[in-house]
Amino acid sequence: MSEFVSLPLALAAEQFAKLPGVGIKTAQRLAYFMLNLPEAEVRDFAENIIKARQSAKLCKYCQNFTERDICGLCADENRRRDQICVVESPKDVSAFERAGGYEGLYHVLHGLLSPMDGVTAEDIKIKELLARLGDVKEVIMATNPTVEGEATAMYIGRLIKPMGIKVTRLAYGLPAGSALEFADDVTLVKAFENRNEI
Amino acid sequence: MSEFVSLPLALAAEQFAKLPGVGIKTAQRLAYFMLNLPEAEVRDFAENIIKARQSAKLCKYCQNFTERDICGLCADENRRRDQICVVESPKDVSAFERAGGYEGLYHVLHGLLSPMDGVTAEDIKIKELLARLGDVKEVIMATNPTVEGEATAMYIGRLIKPMGIKVTRLAYGLPAGSALEFADDVTLVKAFENRNEI
Repeated sequence: MSEFVSLPLALAAEQFAKLPGVGIKTAQRLAYFMLNLPEAEVRDFAENIIKARQSAKLCKYCQNFTERDICGLCADENRRRDQICVVESPKDVSAFERAGGYEGLYHVLHGLLSPMDGVTAEDIKIKELLARLGDVKEVIMATNPTVEGEATAMYIGRLIKPMGIKVTRLAYGLPAGSALEFADDVTLVKAFENRNEI
Repeated sequence: MSEFVSLPLALAAEQFAKLPGVGIKTAQRLAYFMLNLPEAEVRDFAENIIKARQSAKLCKYCQNFTERDICGLCADENRRRDQICVVESPKDVSAFERAGGYEGLYHVLHGLLSPMDGVTAEDIKIKELLARLGDVKEVIMATNPTVEGEATAMYIGRLIKPMGIKVTRLAYGLPAGSALEFADDVTLVKAFENRNEI
C-alpha cells in the first residue's frame, strides 16, 4: 500500500504481514480491525503478547513453554515417570492432553530433522531428551506422519534403542469417522497391514 | 487449552483469538510463532501496533485513517475537487488507488447501513459527507455490490440528489478475465442490460 493512502494502516498491516500464513489482504483487514478498536484494547492486546513472550521459558525437563522452571506436567506427581511421549511442538502436547488417556510425560523437540531446510540434530531438543532417560522404560515417538516426522522418529529411535529402552511409534491407520474411499493409498496399506483381531 | 499445558502460550493465543477470522488453532499457531521469536522482535511487533493505533486519526475531510489532520489525498493539489468517490472502508481507497485512473477525492463511510445489525445512518460517516459537498459536481457511490452496499448507496443517493449533485453507481458486469459460465444470474442479467456499443 503506498504511503500516502494511510500511514497508520500501512504500519499496522506491515506488522501483521510478518505473521506466518498472513498475506497482505488479511494483514490489511487485521490492521483495519485494530485501528477501529479503542486504544486501550489495542494496548492490552500488544502488551499481553509482550508479556507472554517475556514469561515464556522452556521447561528444564520437557522443553515445553512454561512460565516456571519446571512445567505443570513435569511437576505433576500423578504422571507416570517411565513413559515419555516425544512431539514436535507444544500444540501437540495440547492435542494429546485434550484427547486424554495418556498419563506419562512429554518431550517437545521444537522442530523436526530436515536436512533440506538445514535443520540438524543440534537444532532440535534431542540432547535434552537423551539427558532425561534415566528411569524411562518407553519412549513413544509421536511426531507427525510426514517424511520429516518419520525420519526424526527413526533417527531418535536408533539413538535410544541401544540404551535398552523400548521405542514405539504412533499407529498409522484410518482416522475415526472417515470413509475408506477418501483414504490415500499409503494409509490404506498401513491400515490393512496393521489390522487387529476383534 | 488448559492452563497447566503452557500458560505463556495460552496467554498469547488468547490475544490472537480476538482477531477477526482467527480461530483457536490459528491463534495457537501464531502464539507459537511469537514465543519462538527473539523478545526484541516481539516487542517491535507489539509496539508498532500500539504506535499505529495511537497515530491513527481520521482525516477531517474524507474520514480515512491518517497520521495528520488532513490525509495525503485530500491535501494533494492535483486531485479534482469536484468528484467524491464514496467507499465503505480504507482498504477500498487503497484498491482504487492501486488500480489508478481516478483523480478525484474519496469519502470513507466506515461501515454500511445494516438495520439487522443495528447500524443506522448515525453510525457511519454520512453527516461528514453531506458537510463537504460544497463544490462537488458528482458523487460516485462505490460501496460493495451487496445488499447492504446497495441500500447504503440508494440511501445516500436520495439525500444528495435533491441538492442538484449528480450521483452515480459503479457498473455491474462481468469481472475481467472471468468466464460466462461461472457468472451468477444477477451479474449476467446486469451485464446484458448494461451492454455497450463497440
